[in-house]
Amino acid sequence: MYDIAIIGSGPAGVSAALNLKVLGKNFIWFSSRAVSKKVEKAELIKNYPGLPDVTGGELAASLKTHFEKMDIPLTEEVVTGIYDTGGKFTLLAKDKQYEAQAVILCLGVESSKPIEGEESFVGRGVSYCATCDGFLYKGKKIGVLCTDKRFEHEVEFLADIAETAYVFPMYRGYDIKSQKAQIILKNPVKLSGDMRLRKVEYKGGELDIDGMFILKGAISPSTLVHGLRTEDGHISVGRDCATNIAGIFAAGDCTGRPYQYAKAVGEGNVAAHSAVDYLASLRA
Amino acid sequence: MYDIAIIGSGPAGVSAALNLKVLGKNFIWFSSRAVSKKVEKAELIKNYPGLPDVTGGELAASLKTHFEKMDIPLTEEVVTGIYDTGGKFTLLAKDKQYEAQAVILCLGVESSKPIEGEESFVGRGVSYCATCDGFLYKGKKIGVLCTDKRFEHEVEFLADIAETAYVFPMYRGYDIKSQKAQIILKNPVKLSGDMRLRKVEYKGGELDIDGMFILKGAISPSTLVHGLRTEDGHISVGRDCATNIAGIFAAGDCTGRPYQYAKAVGEGNVAAHSAVDYLASLRA
Repeated sequence: MYDIAIIGSGPAGVSAALNLKVLGKNFIWFSSRAVSKKVEKAELIKNYPGLPDVTGGELAASLKTHFEKMDIPLTEEVVTGIYDTGGKFTLLAKDKQYEAQAVILCLGVESSKPIEGEESFVGRGVSYCATCDGFLYKGKKIGVLCTDKRFEHEVEFLADIAETAYVFPMYRGYDIKSQKAQIILKNPVKLSGDMRLRKVEYKGGELDIDGMFILKGAISPSTLVHGLRTEDGHISVGRDCATNIAGIFAAGDCTGRPYQYAKAVGEGNVAAHSAVDYLASLRA
Repeated sequence: MYDIAIIGSGPAGVSAALNLKVLGKNFIWFSSRAVSKKVEKAELIKNYPGLPDVTGGELAASLKTHFEKMDIPLTEEVVTGIYDTGGKFTLLAKDKQYEAQAVILCLGVESSKPIEGEESFVGRGVSYCATCDGFLYKGKKIGVLCTDKRFEHEVEFLADIAETAYVFPMYRGYDIKSQKAQIILKNPVKLSGDMRLRKVEYKGGELDIDGMFILKGAISPSTLVHGLRTEDGHISVGRDCATNIAGIFAAGDCTGRPYQYAKAVGEGNVAAHSAVDYLASLRA
């Protein structure tokens, strides 16, 4: 069991990781990719103190150099669920489970909204994890929303299991190698059903499905952690970056505006210190 | 009148200034010195994201380079009082007055505690400003606590006005050129009196005085701003860095632990955005 798990490697996650390393904690750090796509894409950053006029690529490189110099490993896996399992948290990532006493969420903000109906069918047809839930849909009809090329092997895995996989690629240049994949070049707009998911609608059509896989790097906070308090899509935290769930902390854009790198590194720092205080309080 | 005044040039103050500049605000930035003595003295900083293994001197230099590159001027004056003067704030610094609609306090934390009795005699014998209040003590007996060589010209100014000035230098290598200055190499420990200040006590003695000047770079927040809510010596703020006084914001070590550079730049960023939102709300 780890002391602490950090989810996300944007500026908040990097800051939290640097602090846990300095503080000598036993932690695991998850991210679907090193640093953040959003940072890398930023054109010019004038207000990150100490690094005048950096491009997003340069800031991302500086952050990466920093944690690599400190020998902090990044586990490149997407965590799809965090469960309170009595005095500790269990984290699911693909087919693996991890345990930690405290969790720091540095999830960023999603640019994509959930599909209408998505959240209400989680666990009743909607899944975020191909390897966890794929076998449930053997020989069935599924939809697969794929947001990034790097998830294509999961799409292929699902299509091979299923009777038919209706694949909605959300990017250009897709290359999905499975006879059972049917590509649909429309955005899915609504999920509906009864007790379980039954149908996906898109502009100009609808399809009967038994399950819908949504493969993306970031999952909405309240989907990831059951019972997590959010407000307008942001995780509610206090000045100590504590959420409403004891042992879960949050930092960076996911806690709300301003969406700023300096604010994110500040909160990553505070969340790390608060998590360490929390661990100490458990032992007191 | 300025839109915003920033007090302090540690990491929080630098971060606030960079943001106000980027946001195109008309602001004035006060500090007794460029960047912060505390930062400069730090041996090695491992957790300021993006600048691996910097010394305090290097971090301070990076911050200074940053604001100089952006042509942000620093007004090297000690603000000794901030007063709500109806819809705006009036700031006193030496013999000058400045006005601003909002104020961001980045005061750091004082390593020196106030002298016993100091806060209760402010305005009744205790002063932080030689040029503001010196003339009130013409021909009288005063005490002068001097924390830094750069205030020695103010000590000399006061000694020349007074009948006698008992000077308590808090550093080595003092060089005070005034016949009327009597140097006392002890720490003042208590100020007492009746309606007004009458006496200063130090280890091994006491002196009758009419006034006590305390010359230091940082003044305690509640002395600087009347009515400012503090808790354990820290300014109470919300997640938006707003204090209990509308239009006054605070950031960095002065708002409490952790005393960390990343946290300070984060709050400086947030305070700047909140102050700009506040200005917009006044116009709405």
